[in-house]
Amino acid sequence: MENAPEKIKRIKVKINGEDYYIKGTGSEEYIRGVASYVDKKMIDLSRSHKNLSAARIAVLAALNITDELFKLKQEYDEFLHMLESENSKG
Amino acid sequence: MENAPEKIKRIKVKINGEDYYIKGTGSEEYIRGVASYVDKKMIDLSRSHKNLSAARIAVLAALNITDELFKLKQEYDEFLHMLESENSKG
Repeated sequence: MENAPEKIKRIKVKINGEDYYIKGTGSEEYIRGVASYVDKKMIDLSRSHKNLSAARIAVLAALNITDELFKLKQEYDEFLHMLESENSKG
Repeated sequence: MENAPEKIKRIKVKINGEDYYIKGTGSEEYIRGVASYVDKKMIDLSRSHKNLSAARIAVLAALNITDELFKLKQEYDEFLHMLESENSKG
């Protein structure tokens, strides 16, 4: 059944020492990859900010990842814009 | 002094009701945009997960944003790959 709707999975992961149940339609590998990215960021930030609470470390991780998202978006947009100008030159 | 190194700014923002001082070389507008993105995610998640602690809400926000980052990366990679195959056709 290739066109069957993707099943929503519920996967248990550990982030910064706490258990989370993540729901998603992606593969288990994808969901674990997302969780492990956040876990790694939080561990790195905890090392460099030893006195911060878990909540503040998680917010810093979210800020960090948003910065990456915005920069990638900008790079992608600039690339598309460059292609468009190339094409409009004929 | 066009080539002077960018000054690191320290900007106070409010995320989920808490003050954060964010350091960065980006413009103040950019830093406020990043902070407001995380703030909005956390507020939305708090509304749909009323019993979760601020720490867990922040981790969910970070997971959410990582998912967006990974999906954008994948889209960008697929686009570059498509362009490469077009070019290799001659």
